[in-house]
Amino acid sequence: MEDLFDFGTQVLASQPFSVLVGAELLFFSQGRAELKIPIRPELKQQHGFVHGGVISYAADNALTFAGGSVLGPGVATSEFKINYLRPAIGDFLVARATVIYSSKSQAVCRCDVFVSKGGKESLCATSQGTIAKLGQSSDPKA
Amino acid sequence: MEDLFDFGTQVLASQPFSVLVGAELLFFSQGRAELKIPIRPELKQQHGFVHGGVISYAADNALTFAGGSVLGPGVATSEFKINYLRPAIGDFLVARATVIYSSKSQAVCRCDVFVSKGGKESLCATSQGTIAKLGQSSDPKA
Amino acid sequence: MEDLFDFGTQVLASQPFSVLVGAELLFFSQGRAELKIPIRPELKQQHGFVHGGVISYAADNALTFAGGSVLGPGVATSEFKINYLRPAIGDFLVARATVIYSSKSQAVCRCDVFVSKGGKESLCATSQGTIAKLGQSSDPKA
Amino acid sequence: MEDLFDFGTQVLASQPFSVLVGAELLFFSQGRAELKIPIRPELKQQHGFVHGGVISYAADNALTFAGGSVLGPGVATSEFKINYLRPAIGDFLVARATVIYSSKSQAVCRCDVFVSKGGKESLCATSQGTIAKLGQSSDPKA
Repeated sequence: MEDLFDFGTQVLASQPFSVLVGAELLFFSQGRAELKIPIRPELKQQHGFVHGGVISYAADNALTFAGGSVLGPGVATSEFKINYLRPAIGDFLVARATVIYSSKSQAVCRCDVFVSKGGKESLCATSQGTIAKLGQSSDPKA
Repeated sequence: MEDLFDFGTQVLASQPFSVLVGAELLFFSQGRAELKIPIRPELKQQHGFVHGGVISYAADNALTFAGGSVLGPGVATSEFKINYLRPAIGDFLVARATVIYSSKSQAVCRCDVFVSKGGKESLCATSQGTIAKLGQSSDPKA
Repeated sequence: MEDLFDFGTQVLASQPFSVLVGAELLFFSQGRAELKIPIRPELKQQHGFVHGGVISYAADNALTFAGGSVLGPGVATSEFKINYLRPAIGDFLVARATVIYSSKSQAVCRCDVFVSKGGKESLCATSQGTIAKLGQSSDPKA
Repeated sequence: MEDLFDFGTQVLASQPFSVLVGAELLFFSQGRAELKIPIRPELKQQHGFVHGGVISYAADNALTFAGGSVLGPGVATSEFKINYLRPAIGDFLVARATVIYSSKSQAVCRCDVFVSKGGKESLCATSQGTIAKLGQSSDPKA
């Protein structure tokens, strides 16, 4: 599925905010997407942990990519929910999203966000949300 | 409540990711917080709208500030949910959060995110979440 | 808007589970719905409080009615989120839902659930969710 | 782990609303809980599907049992989010919940709700939420 991965990489590179955050596509196939975000000082909050906003960005974007893998490129997140589990301290984040259910116009996806430190991963957040195909009457974000 | 506002402004300035995004504190009092984020190209996605991750950052951080206004400075977002309503196109975002309920150790807050264009505001997302006081046994994010 | 209220009352009466719970329609207009549930022993959990499942039913159904008031009768809840705030002890529950945003095919709504005891109301839960019009390609629940 | 199962069965039997709905405990161990709800006419909505409120009750209660399996019996759901995926038509519901993360005072859990028809299961809803230990300062529902 190299073409899908290449396409996803281009989409990510065309999102200025994803470039600002420094997100990379690790894996992309039918129903699955993984994003990696190297942790650098600019992504932290006042206590030295990764800012929750970076983690929610990672979850949101991985959810959207997972949904897009089954719905096509014109998609947007309608809604999502995230639970933060642990402070994220380490080398990089990995957000792993999978499609739980999809219809023609939307997909319900789940995403776990891990922080990797010295080669060891810990789950730091878990999320669930709805991705909608655009051009449908219910366009949420685009 | 000038001291609280000054304190909040310092907290925001001490969050490197908030500086990267360009967030400003507009208003901060017992039970209320407002953040402003000027829209610039780096905050967009591939279609020219503000990236959902910026909007979720705004909601998350405004929720945390609102919770912190009643719980004290050592707080973190435990969880939140956001519905995206419209694509955000305009001059700046404003995230307005209020405390709905608080106990000694946590606060449930709501945040509406508006986009302002040419002086006219539109609601672009709405969110709801739980802010926890740290140093309690249930520390979620810190 | 008497006709809408009568119609809503009929819909509620045609839901066997709503009859089992004992829900009554208090108010129903464009963009707003209120349900009342008298508290009786069958609706409680083991500590004598109203069971969370009754409160989430109240929120879910009031959200659906609010969404249906702007989308038409063929609707279903796609998703919702609820925060429980206080144990519900009292005479009856009132769930008040309003539409925050609607498009042709879906509505994002909010619902606060109050418990009334001796004439005094307390907020016991707050919720937010998406109601979808059925017959669209994204039919979630029907 | 027979004792835990027996204890869980007693707790469920002591919840009048669970008795009204007709829920049965199928499985209960450290970090996992499964509830079964036979589908009968009283649990339906006007189109003949299981009412969403029954499904959210199943998710909520299974989440609480899963959380209680690691936190102890004095727990309550703080918050949860549910996505409805398909109309539930069949013989019975099964709600399967697992603990994703737990601290001393709370657990984040996930629950999938399946409908079984003629021996074949379909996922009809997925949910995620926080269970809190009571007697902590953040008592949400009890």
